[in-house]
Amino acid sequence: MSHNLLKGKRGIIFGALNNMSIAWKVAERAVEEGAIITLSNTPIAVRMGEVDELANKLNVQVIPADATSVDDLETVFAKSVEILGGKIDFVLHSIGMSPNVRKKRTYDDLDYKMLDKTLDVSAVSFHKMLQVAKKQDAISECGSVIALSYVAAQRSFFGYNDMADAKSLLESIARSFGYIYGREKGVRVNTISQSPTVTTAGSGVKGMEHLLDFSNKMSPLGNATAEECADYCIVMFSDLTKKVTMQNLFHDGGFSSMGMSLRAMNQYSKGMEDFTDEDGNVIYG
Amino acid sequence: MSHNLLKGKRGIIFGALNNMSIAWKVAERAVEEGAIITLSNTPIAVRMGEVDELANKLNVQVIPADATSVDDLETVFAKSVEILGGKIDFVLHSIGMSPNVRKKRTYDDLDYKMLDKTLDVSAVSFHKMLQVAKKQDAISECGSVIALSYVAAQRSFFGYNDMADAKSLLESIARSFGYIYGREKGVRVNTISQSPTVTTAGSGVKGMEHLLDFSNKMSPLGNATAEECADYCIVMFSDLTKKVTMQNLFHDGGFSSMGMSLRAMNQYSKGMEDFTDEDGNVIYG
Amino acid sequence: MSHNLLKGKRGIIFGALNNMSIAWKVAERAVEEGAIITLSNTPIAVRMGEVDELANKLNVQVIPADATSVDDLETVFAKSVEILGGKIDFVLHSIGMSPNVRKKRTYDDLDYKMLDKTLDVSAVSFHKMLQVAKKQDAISECGSVIALSYVAAQRSFFGYNDMADAKSLLESIARSFGYIYGREKGVRVNTISQSPTVTTAGSGVKGMEHLLDFSNKMSPLGNATAEECADYCIVMFSDLTKKVTMQNLFHDGGFSSMGMSLRAMNQYSKGMEDFTDEDGNVIYG
Amino acid sequence: MSHNLLKGKRGIIFGALNNMSIAWKVAERAVEEGAIITLSNTPIAVRMGEVDELANKLNVQVIPADATSVDDLETVFAKSVEILGGKIDFVLHSIGMSPNVRKKRTYDDLDYKMLDKTLDVSAVSFHKMLQVAKKQDAISECGSVIALSYVAAQRSFFGYNDMADAKSLLESIARSFGYIYGREKGVRVNTISQSPTVTTAGSGVKGMEHLLDFSNKMSPLGNATAEECADYCIVMFSDLTKKVTMQNLFHDGGFSSMGMSLRAMNQYSKGMEDFTDEDGNVIYG
Repeated sequence: MSHNLLKGKRGIIFGALNNMSIAWKVAERAVEEGAIITLSNTPIAVRMGEVDELANKLNVQVIPADATSVDDLETVFAKSVEILGGKIDFVLHSIGMSPNVRKKRTYDDLDYKMLDKTLDVSAVSFHKMLQVAKKQDAISECGSVIALSYVAAQRSFFGYNDMADAKSLLESIARSFGYIYGREKGVRVNTISQSPTVTTAGSGVKGMEHLLDFSNKMSPLGNATAEECADYCIVMFSDLTKKVTMQNLFHDGGFSSMGMSLRAMNQYSKGMEDFTDEDGNVIYG
Repeated sequence: MSHNLLKGKRGIIFGALNNMSIAWKVAERAVEEGAIITLSNTPIAVRMGEVDELANKLNVQVIPADATSVDDLETVFAKSVEILGGKIDFVLHSIGMSPNVRKKRTYDDLDYKMLDKTLDVSAVSFHKMLQVAKKQDAISECGSVIALSYVAAQRSFFGYNDMADAKSLLESIARSFGYIYGREKGVRVNTISQSPTVTTAGSGVKGMEHLLDFSNKMSPLGNATAEECADYCIVMFSDLTKKVTMQNLFHDGGFSSMGMSLRAMNQYSKGMEDFTDEDGNVIYG
Repeated sequence: MSHNLLKGKRGIIFGALNNMSIAWKVAERAVEEGAIITLSNTPIAVRMGEVDELANKLNVQVIPADATSVDDLETVFAKSVEILGGKIDFVLHSIGMSPNVRKKRTYDDLDYKMLDKTLDVSAVSFHKMLQVAKKQDAISECGSVIALSYVAAQRSFFGYNDMADAKSLLESIARSFGYIYGREKGVRVNTISQSPTVTTAGSGVKGMEHLLDFSNKMSPLGNATAEECADYCIVMFSDLTKKVTMQNLFHDGGFSSMGMSLRAMNQYSKGMEDFTDEDGNVIYG
Repeated sequence: MSHNLLKGKRGIIFGALNNMSIAWKVAERAVEEGAIITLSNTPIAVRMGEVDELANKLNVQVIPADATSVDDLETVFAKSVEILGGKIDFVLHSIGMSPNVRKKRTYDDLDYKMLDKTLDVSAVSFHKMLQVAKKQDAISECGSVIALSYVAAQRSFFGYNDMADAKSLLESIARSFGYIYGREKGVRVNTISQSPTVTTAGSGVKGMEHLLDFSNKMSPLGNATAEECADYCIVMFSDLTKKVTMQNLFHDGGFSSMGMSLRAMNQYSKGMEDFTDEDGNVIYG
């Protein structure tokens, strides 16, 4: 159901790959809420993915761009302003990739060229986006910019590797640029720290199913879905959250404020409960 | 403009005193967004304040209650369910008071009976509210409960006194009960940490104007107003934020993520700028 | 081995019950490091516990006191200054108790008189201690005051109940009073957030063993012991940490910065790994 | 006065430039506490600075190295183990530099090659150090590694520019590697978030004096000095803090927990106090 929360607003959505992507859901919901948008993803993602399908469905244009290229980003903002007929009101950054993870390099055996790539794609691209937008004065007063993050920016998760550092950097950039862009143009910059979500990017990660289960059982409301994340992005883009900036907003069913839940502990202690004596009492050795 | 975000929802608003109150604005906006509500405040506030004026304007009922009384709270929830015709979807707790502040007791000269009162009124009342609601099963699945807080829960502000401790306790209660209420009923519990706001409660505090100015100049978007806070409450009550729980949400124009802004430093350094050379350039020695 | 870190310093240790207590270990280590101290605990704990044994061993005096009684605390500080021959350099607050936990009241069925008791004993007692000390000017310049806390102040742990709220309040009091006592007397006030520790207070809690195991496997360095906590208290009492104040210091083998460790996940997924196909591949349903 | 806290320990100190450097003080104090150490800094810093003077004074060796070069770091660790006669017990990373700050590029006009340099020198170098050390198994069980940080990693300070992002990344690396190095070798990894300190690196920054004054007046204990920071490093290197890891430890006189102090507000409101009536009472308009 639409609430017309983005009626007349113009947006750019970076990172929609297929219908599992959070960015895909955000694009659909943004249009449903009355926005007009452009989509952007890497040329290769555009060729191989289903972005065109989304674009056709929503009747919007795709502007291929490498988000680590300032030139490409200049094109995305300039063209979007032109296509949409005015300054941009909201931007979604849903971009992240680690060659070290892909190549199964462990965190104590990182390849540093790959680390540079991780940081550049997953975090510095957000600064480039903001700097390009500000130089072009492409975002309207009270515009809203969001990047998607993960709680690994605050706490260590085995296997999340250098993406944790990239997310920390991303959140710092949101704060740093949020100050500048806020004081000068009233533009909000926030990150949404989302539950682990089954996306093409996330799937295939070793032990991902176990982590999803743990996260789900730890979170009193369960893991947040991509659809629910899209709803949260919509309200953060809307005029109802104009004074929220420089924040990292957890959208995770409560996970970030949990130390140990009953459900997770029940699961956790399963393997331990074999060790009982004949009366069924647990034996600790 | 209404977005029908709370269409068909039932709510209880605690703490509306007069038209400077955040709770007052929330009540107005909630009704505007399609909700039906009841109001509650202390009997004395109801007698002396302008709550009836608001109730008449919105065509809603006022249920006087001392929020530290479990009996009174039982009445508020039972009556509200009856009046509104079903379970409650959202609750606002906007209650806080420190006798130590009123009596100008400094933080190193607290009266402990007064401290008990501060904690009971400003924080424990929130637990009582939640416990009463849960025992009555008065809040619907996916309901949303919000209490208003302040950044003094994390950082020390001279003069904020034992209210800082009360706000810390309040935020902890939101987390603790948020876990329980979330896992069992899907009910969200959050706090919104609002900019210092000129309300009847806030005015009269010594140095309040200076603090408001500092807070405003530190915040890239300036202090958030009561109206803007009401908007934020609305989205947190709506179905678009169903997986946000156990969070303390800063609604402060960025203040909480600022260390020092240029505007605040300009003001700060005024008294220091005597040290200039003959050309008016600042001399650092 | 002694480093003479507290040579010539005078201290008061609240909360030593028996040789499992952290406070007991702190007392031993403080004396070993050259301090002279007094001990204090409730009259009943003194009668029933082994505090006298510790006092004899260390050749120090015990001053029975109910830490919720301002009168009693006045006596402890006045007598300690007299006995030790000068102002106090360090104080340990290791006091916590929840009647709701003892009586197995769940968090959504709290008895509010008991909650008052939990808060008074476990948190407000710390304020009373500091206020009494400051009024008597009983703590020397650059003195150091520590209270023991737990990560439940930040995150929800099932079963920790209203002690979580008490710890949040305790940490807030440390910040609030740390500001006042710091600016006026240079006195540091901090909390140490310790791993779950097998003490008399902790033992008997349902599921405590499972939580200890989880905490231990989550923490890269394992749970911190009472002895290690005592060492950390010593350095925080010493002159080498004179500018650390208003902090909550995690002493937990890394737990607080962990989201999920490999060891804990291995344990966690044990119960899930029954679901494998004939080739031993995990089946997710 | 020495407490023999590092007796028999071997350490490497990166980043001592001259006698204003924190690393310089740490080197002096480490030796005073019984450690044997090596020093390392960039070849140009070694040539131009006074590192040799320190080395002579302490009778230790300097190993020039570019901390962004894995090869150079391999040499530092290999040589240090050789020179000191065994595995390393502690390491200090006191390295940071931003070409964007030097070239007065504002945060919304960053040069991205310079940003890469900022991140590489100030943060990634810390990962390289840890990875090299772990691959060589050059750090002993229960070793301790510290990097120096600043509160700009959490909050925005005008003018701190891309160094804020570098510090966020640095702190994340400490957590991420702290997990790995902790679980496998019991090695602690922490950051110390130090007050702004007048060093050669810090001086010359525009408005630095004002920031130092603000920071000092906000902090109940005043800014922490380089000498005090050295003391804190010593205790974090010692065996008394063996279970502290993955933490960011504020050493700042309380600044990080302050929202507004009386002293800072007095200064702040000076420029506002022109508005007084004939009796000297402040007029708020």
